[in-house]
Amino acid sequence: MARVVQKYGGSSVASADHIKRVAARLQACRANGDDVVAVVSAMGKRTDELYALAGQVASTPEPREMDVLLSTGEIVTSTLLSMALHELGLDAVSLTGAQAGIRTTSVFGRARIAEIQTERMERELNAGRVVIVAGFQGITEDFDITTFGRGGSDTTAVALAAALEADRCEIFTDVAGVYTADPRVCPEARPLRDIGYEEMLEMATTGARVMHARAVEIGALYGVTIRVASSFDDDAPGTLIHGEMTMEQGNKVRGIAHQNHIAKVTVRGVPDRPGIAAHLFEPLANANVSVDTIVQNASVEKLTDMTFTVAPSDLDSALTVVEGVRVELGAAEVVHEPDLGTVSIIGTGMASAPGFAALMFRTLFDSEINVDMISTSDIRITCVIASERVGDAVRALHTAFDLDRED
Amino acid sequence: MARVVQKYGGSSVASADHIKRVAARLQACRANGDDVVAVVSAMGKRTDELYALAGQVASTPEPREMDVLLSTGEIVTSTLLSMALHELGLDAVSLTGAQAGIRTTSVFGRARIAEIQTERMERELNAGRVVIVAGFQGITEDFDITTFGRGGSDTTAVALAAALEADRCEIFTDVAGVYTADPRVCPEARPLRDIGYEEMLEMATTGARVMHARAVEIGALYGVTIRVASSFDDDAPGTLIHGEMTMEQGNKVRGIAHQNHIAKVTVRGVPDRPGIAAHLFEPLANANVSVDTIVQNASVEKLTDMTFTVAPSDLDSALTVVEGVRVELGAAEVVHEPDLGTVSIIGTGMASAPGFAALMFRTLFDSEINVDMISTSDIRITCVIASERVGDAVRALHTAFDLDRED
Repeated sequence: MARVVQKYGGSSVASADHIKRVAARLQACRANGDDVVAVVSAMGKRTDELYALAGQVASTPEPREMDVLLSTGEIVTSTLLSMALHELGLDAVSLTGAQAGIRTTSVFGRARIAEIQTERMERELNAGRVVIVAGFQGITEDFDITTFGRGGSDTTAVALAAALEADRCEIFTDVAGVYTADPRVCPEARPLRDIGYEEMLEMATTGARVMHARAVEIGALYGVTIRVASSFDDDAPGTLIHGEMTMEQGNKVRGIAHQNHIAKVTVRGVPDRPGIAAHLFEPLANANVSVDTIVQNASVEKLTDMTFTVAPSDLDSALTVVEGVRVELGAAEVVHEPDLGTVSIIGTGMASAPGFAALMFRTLFDSEINVDMISTSDIRITCVIASERVGDAVRALHTAFDLDRED
Repeated sequence: MARVVQKYGGSSVASADHIKRVAARLQACRANGDDVVAVVSAMGKRTDELYALAGQVASTPEPREMDVLLSTGEIVTSTLLSMALHELGLDAVSLTGAQAGIRTTSVFGRARIAEIQTERMERELNAGRVVIVAGFQGITEDFDITTFGRGGSDTTAVALAAALEADRCEIFTDVAGVYTADPRVCPEARPLRDIGYEEMLEMATTGARVMHARAVEIGALYGVTIRVASSFDDDAPGTLIHGEMTMEQGNKVRGIAHQNHIAKVTVRGVPDRPGIAAHLFEPLANANVSVDTIVQNASVEKLTDMTFTVAPSDLDSALTVVEGVRVELGAAEVVHEPDLGTVSIIGTGMASAPGFAALMFRTLFDSEINVDMISTSDIRITCVIASERVGDAVRALHTAFDLDRED
């Protein structure tokens, strides 16, 4: 008998029929003698509908209220799944984030889990019930409802698996696992059998939307092995995300990630003195502009160029802030480019082996794709390129790094 | 500066625009310097939609889960109204039943309020916030979510007014108050200026759906004066429900209530011995059949007839139970009539004055309406009549008891 935490995403619970199918899957789990905790997302497009409702009553909905509103989406799914299990003759109980004991910080919209009080869940599991937890939400010390941001139900699932010392944590979604690249862009892409936490984090933050990055961090922190698989295909093995280094991982690029839409801002001719970066990026942070890649060019005659990328939705705010700072810094000018994208190669093996960067740049050059900016980590190299060439770059790199064929 | 509890029903918050109108009303209240607690229902038909969703996953949805599901309807409204107030520059906070400290018994679907812990609401009011409470819900000692049954938001409002020692309790709805009769049936019906708790209770339980009966009981228990008024017409004064006897109330029928659809079951030829009623009605209660009027005829040659009315939806279960009991009691036969209705005259003054019953029966006789059963209380006389004659009876009695003209 194992203890299993399973998460079902929005597309897996999109309708009453979908929910009944998930109930049948949980029934099979129970028939195996497993203790099951299911974490659920809001049905299909319900979160979008709730955002739209909020937009009809307020131009900038109050964050505390937004969190309470959004939390209802997951709660509705959790009750329907519990009803469907009762209908099959299984005992089940739905729990809101608060009822499941998920205590969080009080940053509305992107709260972090502070503690999980497992007493209620343990009691329900011991009573033989399937426990269904509304994902993506918790409650603060002051008894205010919080949410974790888009994709936050993954985080609920992995954190519950850690707190309940589950034997398995399974994230069910509408794709067959973590792919070597986005299959919509690269037809040769295929699901990986396994991937390390750090690699997965780099994949998640540079464009692979299959997992919430925070969930991967928690998995790494508590050593939770996570299986990502399709809820629509019982036979597919999915991808294991874990900390063990396998033969497969050694000395290899594991995946190609990409982002289609980013914008670039450059401040030209900044007098080079200590503290420029702080002067530039503190006001951006205060204006809630999330900055991605940052590159500072070598100083020429005591003048330097500072370049960074932002989401297109943040470009206007960024330009407003930066123009103010430009005057203060005595910089020459601010220029920007809106239609850029990124392509990244990711793999733990890269850290200890040379030649990956060279092959990446050669491949892009051979495809006549111009590289605008470069940034690197131990296990990732990212190139900023023109948005319309992102697809070509992904396909070319997928082939060049030998990802087209089965391991 | 007064402390005011206002309740807005589903039709008053049916859309984003409706919610913005309610926000503007609350803003006007605050501008008066009043402390405001607003209790809200689910938007328009949302509760029906949630019932339908449940029906799609389970034939008999689990009651505990049904309550959690339904509670989300009121929560959604409460957050949207709070957002709309923030948009107007007012500080506001939404509270779920649990957050508002509404502790209930654990009878799912028709929980009763056990206690209201007002600390959180007092803190928010003292901070100058408009407090918006999701109606019709509370939480048990075991931290399980409960609801109060259809119309339960009225109960939330009156109970909060009692617990917070509010100066006013106002129930806003889509009609102009409590009418002398249902205006859809009787065009001459008009809103009452005031009505006593007991009269209102008799009106509510015999067909006037403007207020939840439980809310009236709580009002009577704690002496909360309740104003029922239209949220669509600011000038109409509405109806005051309170305990003081006014001149207007003396020696008068105050209203005509009716029910269109009831069914009647008669057990004929029951050997007359002690305990027959218990033998009959205990198994009906066990089968969850709610029995309304009960009449036992005078015994003829040691045989008696026992008649009772039930909702048409309970008729089949009632007949099944009663047929079993008939054999046990040695009764002759069970007969039933499905297409009946009731008409009631209600008024505190009736208790101390003769002639009301006589005028009622005369009026029905003159209209050639046959009376099938009669039941009375101190302040009410109810006649069971053919369903298709209910409208005629209401109109005739409205005229006969002088309700057509303004007091």
